[in-house]
Amino acid sequence: MLRIIFLLSLLFALSNASVQDFCVANLKRAETPAGYPCIRPIHVKASDFVFSLGTPGNTTNIISAAVTPGFVAQFPALNGLGISAARLDLAPKGVIPMHTHPGASEVLFVLDGSITAGFISSANSVYVQTLKPGQVMVFPQGLLHFQINAGKSAAVAFVTFSSASPGLQILDFALFANSLSTELVSATTFLDPKVIKTLKGVLGGTG
Amino acid sequence: MLRIIFLLSLLFALSNASVQDFCVANLKRAETPAGYPCIRPIHVKASDFVFSLGTPGNTTNIISAAVTPGFVAQFPALNGLGISAARLDLAPKGVIPMHTHPGASEVLFVLDGSITAGFISSANSVYVQTLKPGQVMVFPQGLLHFQINAGKSAAVAFVTFSSASPGLQILDFALFANSLSTELVSATTFLDPKVIKTLKGVLGGTG
Amino acid sequence: MLRIIFLLSLLFALSNASVQDFCVANLKRAETPAGYPCIRPIHVKASDFVFSLGTPGNTTNIISAAVTPGFVAQFPALNGLGISAARLDLAPKGVIPMHTHPGASEVLFVLDGSITAGFISSANSVYVQTLKPGQVMVFPQGLLHFQINAGKSAAVAFVTFSSASPGLQILDFALFANSLSTELVSATTFLDPKVIKTLKGVLGGTG
Amino acid sequence: MLRIIFLLSLLFALSNASVQDFCVANLKRAETPAGYPCIRPIHVKASDFVFSLGTPGNTTNIISAAVTPGFVAQFPALNGLGISAARLDLAPKGVIPMHTHPGASEVLFVLDGSITAGFISSANSVYVQTLKPGQVMVFPQGLLHFQINAGKSAAVAFVTFSSASPGLQILDFALFANSLSTELVSATTFLDPKVIKTLKGVLGGTG
Amino acid sequence: MLRIIFLLSLLFALSNASVQDFCVANLKRAETPAGYPCIRPIHVKASDFVFSLGTPGNTTNIISAAVTPGFVAQFPALNGLGISAARLDLAPKGVIPMHTHPGASEVLFVLDGSITAGFISSANSVYVQTLKPGQVMVFPQGLLHFQINAGKSAAVAFVTFSSASPGLQILDFALFANSLSTELVSATTFLDPKVIKTLKGVLGGTG
Amino acid sequence: MLRIIFLLSLLFALSNASVQDFCVANLKRAETPAGYPCIRPIHVKASDFVFSLGTPGNTTNIISAAVTPGFVAQFPALNGLGISAARLDLAPKGVIPMHTHPGASEVLFVLDGSITAGFISSANSVYVQTLKPGQVMVFPQGLLHFQINAGKSAAVAFVTFSSASPGLQILDFALFANSLSTELVSATTFLDPKVIKTLKGVLGGTG
Repeated sequence: MLRIIFLLSLLFALSNASVQDFCVANLKRAETPAGYPCIRPIHVKASDFVFSLGTPGNTTNIISAAVTPGFVAQFPALNGLGISAARLDLAPKGVIPMHTHPGASEVLFVLDGSITAGFISSANSVYVQTLKPGQVMVFPQGLLHFQINAGKSAAVAFVTFSSASPGLQILDFALFANSLSTELVSATTFLDPKVIKTLKGVLGGTG
Repeated sequence: MLRIIFLLSLLFALSNASVQDFCVANLKRAETPAGYPCIRPIHVKASDFVFSLGTPGNTTNIISAAVTPGFVAQFPALNGLGISAARLDLAPKGVIPMHTHPGASEVLFVLDGSITAGFISSANSVYVQTLKPGQVMVFPQGLLHFQINAGKSAAVAFVTFSSASPGLQILDFALFANSLSTELVSATTFLDPKVIKTLKGVLGGTG
Repeated sequence: MLRIIFLLSLLFALSNASVQDFCVANLKRAETPAGYPCIRPIHVKASDFVFSLGTPGNTTNIISAAVTPGFVAQFPALNGLGISAARLDLAPKGVIPMHTHPGASEVLFVLDGSITAGFISSANSVYVQTLKPGQVMVFPQGLLHFQINAGKSAAVAFVTFSSASPGLQILDFALFANSLSTELVSATTFLDPKVIKTLKGVLGGTG
Repeated sequence: MLRIIFLLSLLFALSNASVQDFCVANLKRAETPAGYPCIRPIHVKASDFVFSLGTPGNTTNIISAAVTPGFVAQFPALNGLGISAARLDLAPKGVIPMHTHPGASEVLFVLDGSITAGFISSANSVYVQTLKPGQVMVFPQGLLHFQINAGKSAAVAFVTFSSASPGLQILDFALFANSLSTELVSATTFLDPKVIKTLKGVLGGTG
Repeated sequence: MLRIIFLLSLLFALSNASVQDFCVANLKRAETPAGYPCIRPIHVKASDFVFSLGTPGNTTNIISAAVTPGFVAQFPALNGLGISAARLDLAPKGVIPMHTHPGASEVLFVLDGSITAGFISSANSVYVQTLKPGQVMVFPQGLLHFQINAGKSAAVAFVTFSSASPGLQILDFALFANSLSTELVSATTFLDPKVIKTLKGVLGGTG
Repeated sequence: MLRIIFLLSLLFALSNASVQDFCVANLKRAETPAGYPCIRPIHVKASDFVFSLGTPGNTTNIISAAVTPGFVAQFPALNGLGISAARLDLAPKGVIPMHTHPGASEVLFVLDGSITAGFISSANSVYVQTLKPGQVMVFPQGLLHFQINAGKSAAVAFVTFSSASPGLQILDFALFANSLSTELVSATTFLDPKVIKTLKGVLGGTG
């Protein structure tokens, strides 16, 4: 009995020393460059470390595809751990359009169907592959890349990122779904103003 | 035509500026603390960015389970990108025994079956959950954790890590599968020497 | 005299302890994820730390602009120091087209003329400003941005990056100046194949 | 006099530019992944940078040993500086049991007595040495390691870590001093349930 | 129209995923080791990313020089981006005295005039160069360095740093402009107490 | 027996996955910004992780003090681990003169005697304390600091750093023990040329 008491006092002393194994985000507080403030460990439950990506995203949209993110904003336990996840659903002819993640590299694992994926390097070299279930592809940080359903059935992939906040910049939305003027888009992309206006019309952009 | 020439000269000038989007490992060269030297970009092919985790691991072993790693040593394109992957196969009653990854946090995605997974914090708190297909669990860096088949059929998971070289220290192998003397194991774990010798016998340890 | 000898022996002893204030790149050796191997300090000269961006780039090209990089590939002393530089020259109507730096944030300082610069965030918000000499603008890592001459005379800017190897991915070159097929470009950007083929023609792309 | 005024105005101007030489932790505020918010520099005193490890820890316990931590939770000036300290006291037969620091490498300096210390690598190789006063041993991040009194008198060591919050996971406490069920411990360690229940009894675990 | 609605719902879903492209500092909140808490993106304006270094600093002072910082404390948009800027003005005979930046490497770009600049390595080697407009020099992190007007007219430089908070420790101010006792300064620099007292008199130091 | 074979094959499979727990430096190979290339794990011995700081340094010199470094250049096992060590010996009146470590914070632990230690912040504030055996002081990265024997007997300290290569720039050696011209030293420190020439004479400087 005395031994237990001795041990427990040791245990308590040492456990004061152990901080920040994890830092579950308090999303109500202001973010910092390294992530959100932590909620107190005493309020952290086992279920906080679990997130569901089991429900297919709704692909009834213009791209016949859906991205379901499990980034720190959706899955606060990732805060500070340098990793995050997402699910991709691609109906037949579905496309995850050309995009970048400004702050992370990506690993894609094909669950179902067949996916043609690719990225373009700074040297403008093209790296495209068609992937089957069980295959993994890695996309280096910050480079333009895309995924497209290569088969006739739905395709599903599980992706992870080397950051809890990888960011996601979709090229068409960046160019055509905001107030960036047609003149500036045209001048900086060499696209014809008519082409730009049409796409702005489809994507809800102005200017 | 002149425009193309002008542009191409610009292109070449700028492409000199673009270095190290990626750094596919030259595994024949000595590693550094930041990873392996890169092979030259001109020798990099699109297929270098693809790795297969589609083949189930062989679970006919004492743990009825298998880990198939896709770390930088197996998948050189991951070098320097801060991410890696692996596949877990758990036959019925299969167990990935208590282990740590000294250099990375882990995200686990359940593909098939049901898995009971958990980790223990520095404060000795226990975080255990039983997961179904489509569920994700995150394990913070360096903490003891485990996965165990919670169902009657085979279970499969895809895992990724926040490092190209996460490391893998399996507790039983660290304690019982090498030459660390029974005396030292006993003194530092409070296990009875008989218990240790039995496990050393099973796991191939000496001393 | 004795004192000097004592001191010098101290000096030599201590100077053994001082390593890697800097690591001037040996560009002939294979890169690693953290940069190039260093040349030996004894071969480093004061002039290695100096680079010239004093010569205007040649703006007689399709964009009426030029980027002169001072990245680690041109200025080896930057290796490992987390910073690099470049010079932008924009003739009247000159444009640095939409681009990203996958691995760095950028600070731009206007030397001469007037420049309209902007970037687009992951949330598709637009941040555009017209800058005069002496003004500085910062572009966060990995986001699409551009610079355009806003005046009638030549404009010049000095830019620096938060990495020795910031990378440079120019959107039009990535989409239209390589072998990425018109079909894939169209599917992932929603641009009409005709538009793509025209730009491929101008920029030298195939497929 | 005028010169002083000029200089002081310069001084004040420049001192506005100098921020965050240090960031003494405000332990009352929520932690972030990079550490605690700083107290204001004006409230920082010279004595905040000093911590005492001069008092021997109480070794009258089951392990005949004590760890006195000087981590950020005890020594707030370490916040953000990437380093921390602790004192180890080992009475005769004292043992710091098998443990890991999930977030830091460790350097141990023997002050008094003789210590047998060792660690086990991911490849299950064993690195054990017996150390005398004045000897230093380094333990790489996240690996299982231990220290044991190798002599007949008390041993003392000063240790430092490559993080202000190295964490400390003691194997026996992680396995036997909490509510992790005997069934799960047995399944994931191959230890006999009887052995586990006995150790849970000694260490205060349940389940 | 339906397509737009589909797309916009996709857009909104995805934009939830995009966090922390930037983190404009809320300077009223306590700093952390990684920088200041962010203001909410909705309050960020395009003009927050612009800072002016167009106004010459006042060089009517003892050093005939001025440093105008654009660090995170002056230019909050730099928070977390790993880069900052400043302007140097050197009247004829102006000097930026011997100093260090404890947390950053520096790149200097000469705009006007001629500047002799140099740094000293840990091995006590001297690297001095005289620079003309358009030349760039890099100063590795933490090393003593200086800039001095090498011509007869005013010199101006634009400098950037590999940190949003590079720090600035000016040697003479550190030694002679505070309460560090003459005895300690003399003992640790080998300067004669008379010399120290004279400089303390000029620079406003006590003790 | 079969079980052992199964297990061992698992063991070997998994041990391929475990790389770079440590990276003992190959000092004969060129350094990189992240440290030296590693020697092969098969050549690493337990004794490589041990270094001796047990021998007092020779204090028969002008500063009556000695620094014995255990940086990566002396203790290759530290390579990549973010930590290093040194021993300070201070005879009566001994002084470790004003110096900086450009790349690391420092923790000092007093073993014997009494030491007055201090540092100066970027804001020119002075933080000085007199320390007794068992006391620890932390010196933030890159700031000028010193240690001086505060008692009548020899003093000894064990110090560690938050980098395997902290660097060491001793102020007097940087200013007076090399070829930096008296004119430049005087212009950038406001010291009288006579004072400089005298110290150059003592410390072996020229120019």
